[in-house]
Amino acid sequence: MTDTSYDPRTGAPVAQAEDTDPEELRAVLGRAAAAAPLAAAASPRTRLAWLSAVAEALEAHADELTGLADQETALGVARLSGEVARAAAQLRFYGEVAVEGSFVGLTVDEATETTPRLVRVNRPLGPVAVFGASNFPFAFSVLGNDTGAAIAAGCPVVAKAHPAHLGLSLRQAELARAALASAGAPEGLFQLVVGHRTGVELVQAPEITAVAFTGSQSGGMALWRLANEREVVIPVYAEMGTVNPVVVTRPGAAEMATVAEGFVGSFTLGNGQFCTKPGLMLAPAGTGAAEAVGEALRAAAPSPVMLTQGIAESVTAGIGQLEDAGAEVVARVDPSGEGWSAPAAVLRAGTSALKPGSRLLEECFGAVALVCEYSSDEELREALSTLQSSLAASVITGGADDQEAAALVDGLSQKVGRVVVDGWPTGVAFTWAQQHGGPWPSTSVPSATSVGAAGLERFVRPVTYQSAHDGLLPPEARADDPWALPRRVDGRLVPAGEPGS
Amino acid sequence: MTDTSYDPRTGAPVAQAEDTDPEELRAVLGRAAAAAPLAAAASPRTRLAWLSAVAEALEAHADELTGLADQETALGVARLSGEVARAAAQLRFYGEVAVEGSFVGLTVDEATETTPRLVRVNRPLGPVAVFGASNFPFAFSVLGNDTGAAIAAGCPVVAKAHPAHLGLSLRQAELARAALASAGAPEGLFQLVVGHRTGVELVQAPEITAVAFTGSQSGGMALWRLANEREVVIPVYAEMGTVNPVVVTRPGAAEMATVAEGFVGSFTLGNGQFCTKPGLMLAPAGTGAAEAVGEALRAAAPSPVMLTQGIAESVTAGIGQLEDAGAEVVARVDPSGEGWSAPAAVLRAGTSALKPGSRLLEECFGAVALVCEYSSDEELREALSTLQSSLAASVITGGADDQEAAALVDGLSQKVGRVVVDGWPTGVAFTWAQQHGGPWPSTSVPSATSVGAAGLERFVRPVTYQSAHDGLLPPEARADDPWALPRRVDGRLVPAGEPGS
Repeated sequence: MTDTSYDPRTGAPVAQAEDTDPEELRAVLGRAAAAAPLAAAASPRTRLAWLSAVAEALEAHADELTGLADQETALGVARLSGEVARAAAQLRFYGEVAVEGSFVGLTVDEATETTPRLVRVNRPLGPVAVFGASNFPFAFSVLGNDTGAAIAAGCPVVAKAHPAHLGLSLRQAELARAALASAGAPEGLFQLVVGHRTGVELVQAPEITAVAFTGSQSGGMALWRLANEREVVIPVYAEMGTVNPVVVTRPGAAEMATVAEGFVGSFTLGNGQFCTKPGLMLAPAGTGAAEAVGEALRAAAPSPVMLTQGIAESVTAGIGQLEDAGAEVVARVDPSGEGWSAPAAVLRAGTSALKPGSRLLEECFGAVALVCEYSSDEELREALSTLQSSLAASVITGGADDQEAAALVDGLSQKVGRVVVDGWPTGVAFTWAQQHGGPWPSTSVPSATSVGAAGLERFVRPVTYQSAHDGLLPPEARADDPWALPRRVDGRLVPAGEPGS
Repeated sequence: MTDTSYDPRTGAPVAQAEDTDPEELRAVLGRAAAAAPLAAAASPRTRLAWLSAVAEALEAHADELTGLADQETALGVARLSGEVARAAAQLRFYGEVAVEGSFVGLTVDEATETTPRLVRVNRPLGPVAVFGASNFPFAFSVLGNDTGAAIAAGCPVVAKAHPAHLGLSLRQAELARAALASAGAPEGLFQLVVGHRTGVELVQAPEITAVAFTGSQSGGMALWRLANEREVVIPVYAEMGTVNPVVVTRPGAAEMATVAEGFVGSFTLGNGQFCTKPGLMLAPAGTGAAEAVGEALRAAAPSPVMLTQGIAESVTAGIGQLEDAGAEVVARVDPSGEGWSAPAAVLRAGTSALKPGSRLLEECFGAVALVCEYSSDEELREALSTLQSSLAASVITGGADDQEAAALVDGLSQKVGRVVVDGWPTGVAFTWAQQHGGPWPSTSVPSATSVGAAGLERFVRPVTYQSAHDGLLPPEARADDPWALPRRVDGRLVPAGEPGS
């Protein structure tokens, strides 16, 4: 089998590669397994040095990579060069989170008359399989959040090339491997494989200890089921697209033209190909919300070229499905016709049409959004209760004294990983306090996150050592504290560098 | 349907109860759901007060409870009165862990030029279903670790009565509900249901947000599959029995009689009905390990009465299966014949018999253990590699200068949740540094633990609030810091009570 990527603007082939054959995959997995103890033993500072080397390689080749990415994704050079910079910064961030050391969770209970000495340490799981997303060819792809967090946590990575940006996947992997080799990283620390069947075999391979995935509901669920059928079941951290709602309060609807403009800007960003795209606006009736959003869309006049032919086709089909499910088109901007163009559209429906099982509650990937107007708090509450859980939600308020906002933020916090106040859900900062994962089905492990410092926690597992003297503990848990870790001793938090007792 | 518990010493019925009917279960779930926001809003000090009230009730009725438990489990009054005290102490411990507040994971990133203000807080999941174990009718049953951790984390509990100690389950629930009512807890904070079918419906109920289970592999896997078939999949935290290995190094074998005595003491504790029972000893050839263990067993002359008729029958059957799989009996102490007695036995097999799929690698619940003697490091390594992962493992060394110990501890740490040095795996202290869960299949979520401070983390989910002013945040995240939480601000750990910036 051969994978091929295409130029979305023309449909012409860009890159081609043979699928990794089973024998080569065995070799890849063998190298990853051999690298696992070396990565686990490497100090966080060493891991940071490895990740920084990859980040530098990305930056040094930013123009080349951006050009290649634009050819394969049509996302535009401006957006993509920003994304290269973000990807490089992310890699360094995860390395710095490792150096800070809280993710090790070092916990020591000294022996008492009735209990033995216990030392608890989060240890790296081992080789991690990474399946990146088509819509962020840098930040959520082969050298994205998952790869950065896994290596920072001390785990080798086997990434699957994304077929939609195959050439870019191969080139990024080539640069990363050269940079890692120069930085002295073990050979199997980062490897790339190609092909759909190879991806399946990767998830089934006994060497693989966890799977990270960003993408569609169907893709994520398929990997999750596959991993659950293994003899040794492994975690699948899948973050998937669902409908992220925006709720506009009555006071928040006062400046509807501005709100509509912001909403359109958010749902058309990246041609609507964001997993945090706001797909549904719930606005008070009588505020002209649907018309305002429609007008803003016509004014913005986007002309989306989609990542793949399949996505482009599904946008047109999706608009039809939404109409069949009871929505009517308020505004539709049809494509100029080049390559894999797709329409952008705003539809409206009554909140009563939001019934369990309705197509209206499912994501329509692309620059398409639905506006529903509510006439009462009760109607709004019912509409929200029928929504699937999602990664994020926004509440647009009338400001700090908006009396409707608190209950909405609290209610939405039950259904999402992140509640945004007076802003839009697109744009996910990689910082300490970020949470990208939301409840099922937006995330297969809702307590996990692929973005932010907590991302490292996905790739470690606690082990407690009972009555073990220093020579039997892993280096990070020893009395000489080579990693300078924050720790908890007899229940008390001890900052890094302070004596433990 | 009616559940009945029996006296293992006589087989006579002890307690009987009707299964919870579907209508009553709906009411139970409704009350649990109604209690969820109240439990979540209750401060950790309030939760500690609730748990302390239950602990006091257990202590105040210790004699009565112990007597009832002994009648239903035959575990003996001495062991059981210790376990009541432990259960009460556990409840207080989880409440104190909540008060310490690290489990909230409060993380604040102040706004920068390029990123918004983010506040991340672990929020309680909601109602938790608890399935306790037959072998610890207090510490791992309806008022055990799972119930304590869930309530401490801010979640209501619906516990299923254990059929083998039905009377005790009902009585404990009665005491807990009275104590909680006196302490002002919401009505639905803790409830008990009865019946196997009820347990299935509980896991399927949309109100339930997580399942905690301690028990057999088959029971845990059944609940895990059931939860994975829900429309909204929920986590199942199942800790299950597997074979916990003990490895004796060559220097460690010097005092084989003492080692054998300790091993017998551990695998016959509670009549071998511990999930941390050491079921396999790997000892150097030529040290007379199997004979020494056999002799120690004969000297101990245990006369186990098992928890249930099924367990008693499976011990005899299990010994036969181990023989069929190539083991030979070294010592067997046959039951005196009263009630659900079972034999205790030591068997031996060559390490070459430890092949994938062999019955020798599976748990035989009861006072039965296998001894395998290894002739080389290579043989030991191969034997260890075929073992399933487990909750715990022990390494018996020759002391601090034993050169064989380090590699063994490191190797075993890949396969277990807890490595014990020069001690036995039975006995699991509930402290900050404890880890009870091990890799699959000993635990369905290997990064979780049912014992120790980290147990609370199973019942919360992080939510990030973006650009939310104080009035829109949950109380625990507000600037006036009503819960006096440790926190991380802009990446820096800030102990409780210190200003955040």
